[in-house]
Amino acid sequence: MSKTAAFGEVMMRLEVPGYGTLSQDNQLKYSFSGSGVNVVSALARYGHESYLVTTLPDNPLGEAALAHLRKLGIATSLVNRGGKYVGMYFLEHGFGARPGRVTYTDRLGSSFNTAAYDGSLFNKAAQQVDLMHFCGITLAMNDNVRDAMKRLAREVKRCGGQIVFDCNYRPSLWGDDGYEKARPHYKEMLELADIVLMNERDALHILGLKTSAQGRADQLKDVIPQVAKQYQIRTIAGTHRQINGDNTHTLTGYVYGNDDFYFARERTFSVYDRVGAGDAFASGIIHGVLQAIPYQQTVEFASAAAILAHTVPGDTPMASDDDVLTAMTDHIGDVER
Amino acid sequence: MSKTAAFGEVMMRLEVPGYGTLSQDNQLKYSFSGSGVNVVSALARYGHESYLVTTLPDNPLGEAALAHLRKLGIATSLVNRGGKYVGMYFLEHGFGARPGRVTYTDRLGSSFNTAAYDGSLFNKAAQQVDLMHFCGITLAMNDNVRDAMKRLAREVKRCGGQIVFDCNYRPSLWGDDGYEKARPHYKEMLELADIVLMNERDALHILGLKTSAQGRADQLKDVIPQVAKQYQIRTIAGTHRQINGDNTHTLTGYVYGNDDFYFARERTFSVYDRVGAGDAFASGIIHGVLQAIPYQQTVEFASAAAILAHTVPGDTPMASDDDVLTAMTDHIGDVER
Amino acid sequence: MSKTAAFGEVMMRLEVPGYGTLSQDNQLKYSFSGSGVNVVSALARYGHESYLVTTLPDNPLGEAALAHLRKLGIATSLVNRGGKYVGMYFLEHGFGARPGRVTYTDRLGSSFNTAAYDGSLFNKAAQQVDLMHFCGITLAMNDNVRDAMKRLAREVKRCGGQIVFDCNYRPSLWGDDGYEKARPHYKEMLELADIVLMNERDALHILGLKTSAQGRADQLKDVIPQVAKQYQIRTIAGTHRQINGDNTHTLTGYVYGNDDFYFARERTFSVYDRVGAGDAFASGIIHGVLQAIPYQQTVEFASAAAILAHTVPGDTPMASDDDVLTAMTDHIGDVER
Amino acid sequence: MSKTAAFGEVMMRLEVPGYGTLSQDNQLKYSFSGSGVNVVSALARYGHESYLVTTLPDNPLGEAALAHLRKLGIATSLVNRGGKYVGMYFLEHGFGARPGRVTYTDRLGSSFNTAAYDGSLFNKAAQQVDLMHFCGITLAMNDNVRDAMKRLAREVKRCGGQIVFDCNYRPSLWGDDGYEKARPHYKEMLELADIVLMNERDALHILGLKTSAQGRADQLKDVIPQVAKQYQIRTIAGTHRQINGDNTHTLTGYVYGNDDFYFARERTFSVYDRVGAGDAFASGIIHGVLQAIPYQQTVEFASAAAILAHTVPGDTPMASDDDVLTAMTDHIGDVER
Amino acid sequence: MSKTAAFGEVMMRLEVPGYGTLSQDNQLKYSFSGSGVNVVSALARYGHESYLVTTLPDNPLGEAALAHLRKLGIATSLVNRGGKYVGMYFLEHGFGARPGRVTYTDRLGSSFNTAAYDGSLFNKAAQQVDLMHFCGITLAMNDNVRDAMKRLAREVKRCGGQIVFDCNYRPSLWGDDGYEKARPHYKEMLELADIVLMNERDALHILGLKTSAQGRADQLKDVIPQVAKQYQIRTIAGTHRQINGDNTHTLTGYVYGNDDFYFARERTFSVYDRVGAGDAFASGIIHGVLQAIPYQQTVEFASAAAILAHTVPGDTPMASDDDVLTAMTDHIGDVER
Amino acid sequence: MSKTAAFGEVMMRLEVPGYGTLSQDNQLKYSFSGSGVNVVSALARYGHESYLVTTLPDNPLGEAALAHLRKLGIATSLVNRGGKYVGMYFLEHGFGARPGRVTYTDRLGSSFNTAAYDGSLFNKAAQQVDLMHFCGITLAMNDNVRDAMKRLAREVKRCGGQIVFDCNYRPSLWGDDGYEKARPHYKEMLELADIVLMNERDALHILGLKTSAQGRADQLKDVIPQVAKQYQIRTIAGTHRQINGDNTHTLTGYVYGNDDFYFARERTFSVYDRVGAGDAFASGIIHGVLQAIPYQQTVEFASAAAILAHTVPGDTPMASDDDVLTAMTDHIGDVER
Repeated sequence: MSKTAAFGEVMMRLEVPGYGTLSQDNQLKYSFSGSGVNVVSALARYGHESYLVTTLPDNPLGEAALAHLRKLGIATSLVNRGGKYVGMYFLEHGFGARPGRVTYTDRLGSSFNTAAYDGSLFNKAAQQVDLMHFCGITLAMNDNVRDAMKRLAREVKRCGGQIVFDCNYRPSLWGDDGYEKARPHYKEMLELADIVLMNERDALHILGLKTSAQGRADQLKDVIPQVAKQYQIRTIAGTHRQINGDNTHTLTGYVYGNDDFYFARERTFSVYDRVGAGDAFASGIIHGVLQAIPYQQTVEFASAAAILAHTVPGDTPMASDDDVLTAMTDHIGDVER
Repeated sequence: MSKTAAFGEVMMRLEVPGYGTLSQDNQLKYSFSGSGVNVVSALARYGHESYLVTTLPDNPLGEAALAHLRKLGIATSLVNRGGKYVGMYFLEHGFGARPGRVTYTDRLGSSFNTAAYDGSLFNKAAQQVDLMHFCGITLAMNDNVRDAMKRLAREVKRCGGQIVFDCNYRPSLWGDDGYEKARPHYKEMLELADIVLMNERDALHILGLKTSAQGRADQLKDVIPQVAKQYQIRTIAGTHRQINGDNTHTLTGYVYGNDDFYFARERTFSVYDRVGAGDAFASGIIHGVLQAIPYQQTVEFASAAAILAHTVPGDTPMASDDDVLTAMTDHIGDVER
Repeated sequence: MSKTAAFGEVMMRLEVPGYGTLSQDNQLKYSFSGSGVNVVSALARYGHESYLVTTLPDNPLGEAALAHLRKLGIATSLVNRGGKYVGMYFLEHGFGARPGRVTYTDRLGSSFNTAAYDGSLFNKAAQQVDLMHFCGITLAMNDNVRDAMKRLAREVKRCGGQIVFDCNYRPSLWGDDGYEKARPHYKEMLELADIVLMNERDALHILGLKTSAQGRADQLKDVIPQVAKQYQIRTIAGTHRQINGDNTHTLTGYVYGNDDFYFARERTFSVYDRVGAGDAFASGIIHGVLQAIPYQQTVEFASAAAILAHTVPGDTPMASDDDVLTAMTDHIGDVER
Repeated sequence: MSKTAAFGEVMMRLEVPGYGTLSQDNQLKYSFSGSGVNVVSALARYGHESYLVTTLPDNPLGEAALAHLRKLGIATSLVNRGGKYVGMYFLEHGFGARPGRVTYTDRLGSSFNTAAYDGSLFNKAAQQVDLMHFCGITLAMNDNVRDAMKRLAREVKRCGGQIVFDCNYRPSLWGDDGYEKARPHYKEMLELADIVLMNERDALHILGLKTSAQGRADQLKDVIPQVAKQYQIRTIAGTHRQINGDNTHTLTGYVYGNDDFYFARERTFSVYDRVGAGDAFASGIIHGVLQAIPYQQTVEFASAAAILAHTVPGDTPMASDDDVLTAMTDHIGDVER
Repeated sequence: MSKTAAFGEVMMRLEVPGYGTLSQDNQLKYSFSGSGVNVVSALARYGHESYLVTTLPDNPLGEAALAHLRKLGIATSLVNRGGKYVGMYFLEHGFGARPGRVTYTDRLGSSFNTAAYDGSLFNKAAQQVDLMHFCGITLAMNDNVRDAMKRLAREVKRCGGQIVFDCNYRPSLWGDDGYEKARPHYKEMLELADIVLMNERDALHILGLKTSAQGRADQLKDVIPQVAKQYQIRTIAGTHRQINGDNTHTLTGYVYGNDDFYFARERTFSVYDRVGAGDAFASGIIHGVLQAIPYQQTVEFASAAAILAHTVPGDTPMASDDDVLTAMTDHIGDVER
Repeated sequence: MSKTAAFGEVMMRLEVPGYGTLSQDNQLKYSFSGSGVNVVSALARYGHESYLVTTLPDNPLGEAALAHLRKLGIATSLVNRGGKYVGMYFLEHGFGARPGRVTYTDRLGSSFNTAAYDGSLFNKAAQQVDLMHFCGITLAMNDNVRDAMKRLAREVKRCGGQIVFDCNYRPSLWGDDGYEKARPHYKEMLELADIVLMNERDALHILGLKTSAQGRADQLKDVIPQVAKQYQIRTIAGTHRQINGDNTHTLTGYVYGNDDFYFARERTFSVYDRVGAGDAFASGIIHGVLQAIPYQQTVEFASAAAILAHTVPGDTPMASDDDVLTAMTDHIGDVER
């Protein structure tokens, strides 16, 4: 197995239990997650040694976050301590026709986003791992962490590691003229990346590519190969999602690699907790690449991992390798006893 | 925006959490609701100044009810204090093929139903508001409160306000020969009403109208115009509901006004909490009339409000104007972040 | 062991968990209790066959109450079904300087208080048991149930059973001039009783006895023998309680029998749940008398039972015979493992 | 009504609330169940006097189990006390594509499985009841309890009672070559049984019957009559279940009796808690036989009982006779109020 | 009664239930409080019309905060909407020898601390109220809100209202050389104040007064009159608190007014929730001054209010006028029923 | 800092929340602990690298236990996987005069107690650590694990590590003639031990020493030096505990080393959770020895650590080095903010 890591913020998730709103209730469940957390935790479950490169405050919330990371199987030896705050978000679950809502607290002032990342930690990290995961959410934060992210990516590259970049563009984080602001940073990351998570919308909106194709599937087939070629990216992967009115979603995953597309079959499934499912897909792709599993099998694996991630509470995937392999079939098992 | 009010009982809702029964569990969640509470709370969310005219005991339960009303945005300056008890009901949620169950405590002895309502409070209320909501459940209680209800309605009318009357016939409250007992009281209220919530069953059973039409839709089209004409009611509205075996319902809302019918498109949706959805529909209709929104848009708004009310815990609608406008489309949004 | 029973109402206890108020919280824990329930449940734990004579509605709340009685080890073959409501009370726990609060719903309309008790049930009950427990709370309800209570007591007496009467005078239930209203009913019950729970205040206020003694202990010693003599009561017992500011109480139990007083030693102890502790004391006395345990040991047993009842959640004593015997020593045990 | 009993282990069910896993959560809900518990509890709800023959330890867990049995309406006078442990299982609920998981603790060392069952208890039990339920799970335990089970079945038979045997083969309990190990024990029980719960898989795998039919339905029709004939079984019943991806199941119940098959119509329904639904079906069949209800109605009743059992939390059916009769129609009721 | 208001931040309190730590648990209870919130909520309970002048974001957390304020009886017509964040703190309760811990999120970026407060809101507020409460915690935030605070205080003064200033010095908020930084701001507020909450430590450390007295009581008597004289303050009040090892505290309240000291008697009491008790004392003092209650009675009332505030969950006092009057005696009541 | 480990069973703690009994409630909180778990978790908090040598099953409970160990900061690289069961105990908290109760499930069949421990794991462990902790509870299990325990201790010794042995004699685990059965095994462990946790009762009862001294303190001073001398033990430590009726305990810790006794001052403190406090004391002693802290300071540190462990939920100490140093003073801090 490989040594993997992610560079990213640890977010405290504060969730109204059940389906009430913050105005109605007086209780919350909390956990700690984040795109990087989710990815390396899943990779740890698949058997890879997994690290998180991040910064957490030296206070009870930082302690709680660390304890939670350890619980998830993530090695914490590359976690900085310092700064004052943990990034947080409040989640009100949606139901049927009512969408869920996420409300953030001030992420920009968090330990992760304000830390001074020195080169020695990055060098140590880069030498320790085979692959490092980065994400577009971090890119949306501030110059400090954007700069750190790129420095670390270059250092990993320099030491021979692979770079994963998940585009994960969030309009609300970039504000007005977001695509223009984001474009140069995304381009820099794509130059460094070996594995990229994106779909045609990222290519069209962030990178500004053009297509005459109609329909998402055709647009995808048109623009993704262009991106792969221009940025010399070995593997690009992503999903198309449709949200149905009865608490089910429909998902189709794809991988583009070896100059070819590989699609998972379209699946419709019941959704319990939507947040973090994209990270489950990403970690399935990474696992497939690291283990040199054929792309067709990899994309089915990643899709099944994503589907399972919709069925457990919390942002972070909880499935083992075996669980995912079972879920790749269409057979739904009875209670196991 | 307008000044609105409702005359009605505050009920304490005591709910077995999840899907267990009172025999199985040992915990309850409680809140305070009631048809009038639900309607004016929704109107407050839409921006109207909203009052409740009711009576609550001067004890810890009365205090808790008042605090809850304030939380819902309802002005409590027209709330009487006195009597001894709060009306209560226990709710066991149904699931799939198993219907939910409501068990009442003694409502007839409640503060609301035993209070002596003096004219000065009613005069103050009538002068303060543009519209007052009444409901057939109150009509089913006892002579004391029936009498008060009619006096208040007449006073509002005298002061130039509009009357909303929701037929809301509950067979279990009227007992044997219920329709005969109820008929004269309903007729009195219909004489006073400007906006009425009802459907063809109310017209046929309570008012005793006849129709040769087959099928609910045709019966509706036959009898509702008769009611509107006979009682000089400007706007009549209501819904047809079908309950499916998979925790979904199908709903079609209608408005009759300007000598014409306006139907919302039929929608099927997942249901989390069925109680109070009718009040959400009613408040959508009232909002549309108060804001002079065209009937077609009003009935779609009211239907979407009703659908959303099925997706949140509790009897009382929690949606804002914007939430309802979004839900009027068929697009189901992803988690908002 | 003996066959015991109690005649009394089943109350639903609805309790704010922890130390919040009804205005603050939105959750309740519920259970079913009542003076008679508590006494016969304790007697069942001590090994006696135990019945409750009461009436419960034929609805989900009645079902839940029955299930709870069975869980407590109470035989339900003498429980009537009928009427509409279960008596209820809401409990907000006090803490330190802040006293707890009980808020009742309408007890007078409950199944128990409105039932028509026919002679055959009473005859069946009277023939089945060695001892029947009654309580002054029932006496405070209404003529219907007061009459039933006296009829049943006479029937038990006629069949050779013993009568226990717990004075349990609650000022709020009797209203103005309560002592005067209560006096004749109490006297009737005392005439029938073999075992009575009371203290000097009952004798002075309810029965109107006079004493020149100062201090509660001396008054007790003066008036209780008079009561015993006048009403031919074999055993009288009761407690003096003092409430301290640090969540502890101080309790001294006494028994008067064989023309003599027996005092348990005064004990101060931490209190978790105060409600129902008097019933634990009563059941300890009854058990002692039924088993012909010497009075000194009986009063220590009853006091220890009362102390333990303060340490468990809920109204109903949970201690076994062995638990009480252990608690009669001053040694506080470590966790048993 | 009849006197019924079951011989079986009381299991403590420890359930992760909601849809999380044991690794994620820190809370459990617990209850006590078991195949026999479920069956006689359901029969008690239908009006039969119902006993459990089992052994429970004399410790706080045994006390809690007893209290729970009483709550379910089960008479505990045939419950042995002794041994050390209660059998337990942990349940993690599945959701959609993710199956639930059951993890057992050491059942073989439980009080039930290690008790020395003396003949006098069995004789008392056999004389007291009209019918005794046994289950294949018990058969999988150890020689001690297998022997006891067969002795008790013979004793009931000798006293004129009916024997119900539910095949309930659990592969994980029998281990390698399970069918071979199980076969002789199953045959012994079938020799004694009057009513048997099984389907074609049991006949083919456990009993080793052969069929050339394709498809489960045809195989069923081929082999079940053979079993009935060979073992002289009056009534055989069972279900075919299909698990769908959207939290619904599809079920078809059958009865074979009077040399004929009776099928309930196939129904698809939303599932909340799958465990114990088979016992609900079994108790519906037993009730039908005891009450001499025609087979067609019996199988519809048992199927509706099974469907309702999927809609309540816990293993144990909670429906009354009336609830089941209502659920036999396809009409799904609105909240009952 | 009077019209009162407070200028201050609404804080979200996120509390680990029971006595666990953030690292151990995964659940929180939340409510909304703040020094000003607590004070005006208590004044509302005493019958005064009560407003909060603050800023809350226009998002689900802002909505929840508003709903909570209304529930507490606080009028929200002077609440600004804008900015992005609600101030938050996490509370881990202490027990016995283990002190509780508070962990803040970034308050400086909160809506309250970053809002641009325009003069018209302040003018409206100043004209509407008889008294406005300010607190030293706000003074510790940033120049923006410090400036707003002083402007508002001057405006209230100009319109004839009284100013309450609670020194409430928090070392952790001011950092190094905190007293020096704080001094000029405190002096400015003291110049404006009519009622001041402080004790001798504030006078010595913040204002830099000197005393040769030994012991806190003597120092108090020496320096407080100097402060009153120098800043022309009509009423100064405060408490001395001692924390004992057994979950009890000892408190002595004082008032200085009319050139004289008035001391409440020292009381030791069990503590359930320590946070916010100072605000309960302050509101008792304010109530006494507004109602012109003699100082001796006022300080006993304020002390009893503070003691009660230690016995309820949450920061915000829940006691009514009557509750406080009862708690002024040393008699601890039994459960009220 | 040092490398430390413990050899011991991981127990699942299943705890009735609050103060109810298993018969009353239907919910449990769970965590994973054990004497060794508690000790190495505390040492990890003090900065030592900490391992657990144990065996856990390869099922969801084993996964959950591992996740919990990681959360506590314990390295799991020396954890074996195999066997079938996790040891479990149920905890009902006591209150005041009512002692808590622990009910075990079958520990003897647990993975830990049935595992075949091969020499290579033990050799790896012995080479990796400076100190290994063992406990008398393990000694009480069975020959398999007793043998493994002694082999591992000898291996650690051989590799130059120190041995800690906590006598921890549990009468219920050894049964009749327990002291005689236990004696030879205890002697073997004492021969190997460098640090021993015990008091005079262990010396008198298990080792069979005699003393003419009266009173526990004098007996201690008489027999402990004999033990130290006979078994060549460098450091012996232990506590005397007294349980008071008001939820407080009184504790005096001692160390015997360098031929001298060092006593912590006697302290009385409020108790929230008693289980595991002895392990907190032990880890304080170990930390002091490893860090060469003077014995007087070490015993005060260990006592303060034990006191803090009584104030947090769960078996496992949660205090940091700093927390303990603070608690060594008698000053009880206010809430830290």
